[in-house]
Amino acid sequence: MTSLANATILPLAEFQPSHFALSAVGKVATVTLNRPEKKNPLTFASYRELTDFFLAAQKDEQVKAIVVTGAGGNFSSGGDVFEIIGPLVAMETKELLKFTRMTGDLVKAIRACPQPVIAAIDGICAGAGAIIAMASDLRFGTAESKIAFLFNRVGLAGCDMGACAMLPRIVGQGRAAELLYTGRVLRGDEAERWGFLNRLLSRDVVLAEAQTLAAELADGPTFANAMTKRMLEMEWAMSVESAIEAEAVAQALCMQTEDFARAYHAFAGKQKPVFEGN
Amino acid sequence: MTSLANATILPLAEFQPSHFALSAVGKVATVTLNRPEKKNPLTFASYRELTDFFLAAQKDEQVKAIVVTGAGGNFSSGGDVFEIIGPLVAMETKELLKFTRMTGDLVKAIRACPQPVIAAIDGICAGAGAIIAMASDLRFGTAESKIAFLFNRVGLAGCDMGACAMLPRIVGQGRAAELLYTGRVLRGDEAERWGFLNRLLSRDVVLAEAQTLAAELADGPTFANAMTKRMLEMEWAMSVESAIEAEAVAQALCMQTEDFARAYHAFAGKQKPVFEGN
Amino acid sequence: MTSLANATILPLAEFQPSHFALSAVGKVATVTLNRPEKKNPLTFASYRELTDFFLAAQKDEQVKAIVVTGAGGNFSSGGDVFEIIGPLVAMETKELLKFTRMTGDLVKAIRACPQPVIAAIDGICAGAGAIIAMASDLRFGTAESKIAFLFNRVGLAGCDMGACAMLPRIVGQGRAAELLYTGRVLRGDEAERWGFLNRLLSRDVVLAEAQTLAAELADGPTFANAMTKRMLEMEWAMSVESAIEAEAVAQALCMQTEDFARAYHAFAGKQKPVFEGN
Repeated sequence: MTSLANATILPLAEFQPSHFALSAVGKVATVTLNRPEKKNPLTFASYRELTDFFLAAQKDEQVKAIVVTGAGGNFSSGGDVFEIIGPLVAMETKELLKFTRMTGDLVKAIRACPQPVIAAIDGICAGAGAIIAMASDLRFGTAESKIAFLFNRVGLAGCDMGACAMLPRIVGQGRAAELLYTGRVLRGDEAERWGFLNRLLSRDVVLAEAQTLAAELADGPTFANAMTKRMLEMEWAMSVESAIEAEAVAQALCMQTEDFARAYHAFAGKQKPVFEGN
Repeated sequence: MTSLANATILPLAEFQPSHFALSAVGKVATVTLNRPEKKNPLTFASYRELTDFFLAAQKDEQVKAIVVTGAGGNFSSGGDVFEIIGPLVAMETKELLKFTRMTGDLVKAIRACPQPVIAAIDGICAGAGAIIAMASDLRFGTAESKIAFLFNRVGLAGCDMGACAMLPRIVGQGRAAELLYTGRVLRGDEAERWGFLNRLLSRDVVLAEAQTLAAELADGPTFANAMTKRMLEMEWAMSVESAIEAEAVAQALCMQTEDFARAYHAFAGKQKPVFEGN
Repeated sequence: MTSLANATILPLAEFQPSHFALSAVGKVATVTLNRPEKKNPLTFASYRELTDFFLAAQKDEQVKAIVVTGAGGNFSSGGDVFEIIGPLVAMETKELLKFTRMTGDLVKAIRACPQPVIAAIDGICAGAGAIIAMASDLRFGTAESKIAFLFNRVGLAGCDMGACAMLPRIVGQGRAAELLYTGRVLRGDEAERWGFLNRLLSRDVVLAEAQTLAAELADGPTFANAMTKRMLEMEWAMSVESAIEAEAVAQALCMQTEDFARAYHAFAGKQKPVFEGN
């Protein structure tokens, strides 16, 4: 009998996605959007499956960091015009809200899983693809990256899947407004200059570098890193004073992990600490 | 008989300002602060008239984007020393609060109108002038732009008309603090590097480029763009989770506009969409 | 008989610190972390004494700006491994929370004192040292500055003393996440580019330049500057609309200071205003 809490959640080890590729090396899982002939668009089914994956990641004990990338030299072209936009045009209010909530659920799932998520971006990174990149914790990209919040180009608002909350927090309000009003392409070098990309790398190493950092984070104090992720998420809506109190409690909890003691004893013994995430 | 809601609001077409110049080309209105011999200072009357203009813009159906600029090579020198500061020094508490609220009302009116507002900045952009630029959605400027939050130079706090809320969201907390504590001049190139200016242009084209982008936005999905503006404004005070839900609702509404259908059919027919803002 | 309100607070003039050096020139106090042989680490006692100092500064009428620096070419290495981390590893929950709250109290005291605080940073600026720099209003540094939020290197979360609230507001969410997840060193030039440092200076002048700006601010309208500090702190957790109202009230108060009148009369008489902070 499956417990209620896990009823609809598959463990990652059993996850066999139909709409993206999934691989794991050590404690790092790599999600690859892989319909390269169409620049890896999202569909109703892939939105749902990606959300299920990140929900499952919340309960997983093996995977400690996640990389998201795209196959064939592009990250993602976003919602497919014929497979998503066409049907949406014909939908009624209730169905539309169900759809927009479903897409928002993907962002919530990425933000809620304890693993740091690193996007490895090359080529087209547009619409919902750009949102997935933005919902990730860190973003590595290439000079050939073309990031675009295309929504207004298809007659929609820039406020999609949390974009008006997340983008200003990453690049500032003025730059976010420009990108969301115009849908213009932000190229890799400018994206790095603005803090949207954490590192600018060549096309042949961007994925490997993202996986290398993911592996390093996965070997770190993962209980503590998950707390960092949660607090980075929560504290935008807190006063600094409240944030200080929330952090006092969270850090006191982290100080009771074995990882904290391991780090101290390793340092005292002039060794490199080996963290276990507990 | 005028309806109650419109009782005190003139439609933009009837707006005949005494304290600034107003022109319209197509769907773009351009507001020009124009006392060039004094570097376009603000006065009690011009504050009020500008506020009335932006309030009227909220109800206008013809103007879809607004450019704000200054005549004679400067944007604005801010509150006039003799016409504003002098009288304020002699005022009592109640009158002072009435004044500071009136100046704040200008920012609220700029933020609340559905049109994107683009500031075209050259030369002096100081005090309340810098606030008007900051309250705009986008800012184009020149290398000769001299932006200064002068308040502490006249014995006042940097917290004027929402500056301590808006400036950190645009340039970050550390840089905002420096500008507000010192009142120092931020030059055009540094302002672009910090994200205060969206584009750095030459003096002879900065206004025309702002008007060109304004015309492009005015030809876009203006119902959706107005939603983008509203959500960019509201989501700073929301958690990301609340923002995602708010955006799901807002975007589901935008998906019911004709503009969304127009974009899809244009794309399917390999044509450029023609948006109508509905 | 001491009044209740002042019962436990020493005036700065009587402050004789045991755990840092304190000097005052004119209206500027300089706090120097000075155990240079250990790169100026923090200890239980120095945390407390620094907090007491900034609490005392809240009530002081002589000191109008504060500089924080470190002796011997480093700012601070943060919590001492043997004097802080060792004991923490052995503590129980209640004691741990007492400690994390005490460290948070230092940040609260820095943020709550009316004086602008300028950090003059050189060399190592790590862990709690980086937090003190971040809690300051402005940061001057050198190319040799090595800023690192080391917490995850010792098995802890990046959410320490308010870091997950403050760092994203200064450098943006993406860059903050990278620094907090990896604990990597941010060097001076990159820190300036990101807006963490306000100015990049040479090692021989960084402290003097910080003191010079502090003296300028101390000669400014200090009542108004304290209001700027308070509002910059409070408005992150406000909507822009609420912030505008809060600023209307705060600025109306500042308009009733003598400094405001002094500035006007000096300007009218073509003289430089002399502010007195009232």
